[in-house]
Amino acid sequence: MATKTLENLFHDHLKDIYYAEKKILKTLPKMVKASQSPELKSAFEKHIIETEGQVERLEQVFEIFGKRPQGKTCPAIDGILDEGAEVMDDYKGSPALDAGLVAAAQAVEHYEITRYGTLKRWATLLGMSNAAKLLDETLQQETSTDLCLTKIADNQVNDKALSTSQKAA
Amino acid sequence: MATKTLENLFHDHLKDIYYAEKKILKTLPKMVKASQSPELKSAFEKHIIETEGQVERLEQVFEIFGKRPQGKTCPAIDGILDEGAEVMDDYKGSPALDAGLVAAAQAVEHYEITRYGTLKRWATLLGMSNAAKLLDETLQQETSTDLCLTKIADNQVNDKALSTSQKAA
Repeated sequence: MATKTLENLFHDHLKDIYYAEKKILKTLPKMVKASQSPELKSAFEKHIIETEGQVERLEQVFEIFGKRPQGKTCPAIDGILDEGAEVMDDYKGSPALDAGLVAAAQAVEHYEITRYGTLKRWATLLGMSNAAKLLDETLQQETSTDLCLTKIADNQVNDKALSTSQKAA
Repeated sequence: MATKTLENLFHDHLKDIYYAEKKILKTLPKMVKASQSPELKSAFEKHIIETEGQVERLEQVFEIFGKRPQGKTCPAIDGILDEGAEVMDDYKGSPALDAGLVAAAQAVEHYEITRYGTLKRWATLLGMSNAAKLLDETLQQETSTDLCLTKIADNQVNDKALSTSQKAA
């Protein structure tokens, strides 16, 4: 077996996040449809456009790295999205649904934050400063999305879920 | 179907992270064994002790919430840990292994950071300030672990993986 290098790690994780972004892109319209709050719906809609840009940026990183864009099954995002689907099913029609959707979306964001953070550092080490810049752009976008979701939770959807709890208590 | 409330969301996510912490506790010794750098080994060893405390804290949160401690299969952590296991297999014996292990561990930390952040906010809203305090203690610990792993990556394991890449180039 050939010795595995940082290039191999970079390539494997690039394929992992490429698969993840494409799967997220398929899932986001379901989250738009499921969400009840107009603010949350609009945040997910905005994130669809951002995610399309993130996929394009990844394709540019593949090009800089000299490899063709290719995904690799990512059990982590599959599991994270399965949990989101479970929330959509279990909380369908419930005023607590949006709070659950925010939690599910933030789990996705955090997975992306850690992967882009790592890939950016590895790209820098491998001397691919343009790739690092592209990966950092997406990292900043994912971090902003996570903060935006926290605000929507704090200002709106958690309170709605809570008022239901109080009624149910 | 009864209307699902914030209490249901809190309970579901508490069971989810309880399952996750117990599974992480089973996985960490394998990561200690696999890691090559003494600093990384020692960081994982320290995290075993922290994770034991985190499980205990979750049991206290269950008590405050008036429910018995119980796990619920968490496909997200299963997927994240499957990816870690894949790195351990694929990079076994390679000097890039530690860099891959750090990336895998940081994916775990970020999943916990998002879940504890959400649970803490929900506990506060549900009037369980003591539970929120316990959840925040763990959140701070996970955030520190993530930063510590970044330092180990930057100061040591990424360079080791890189020097192998340069030799291989």
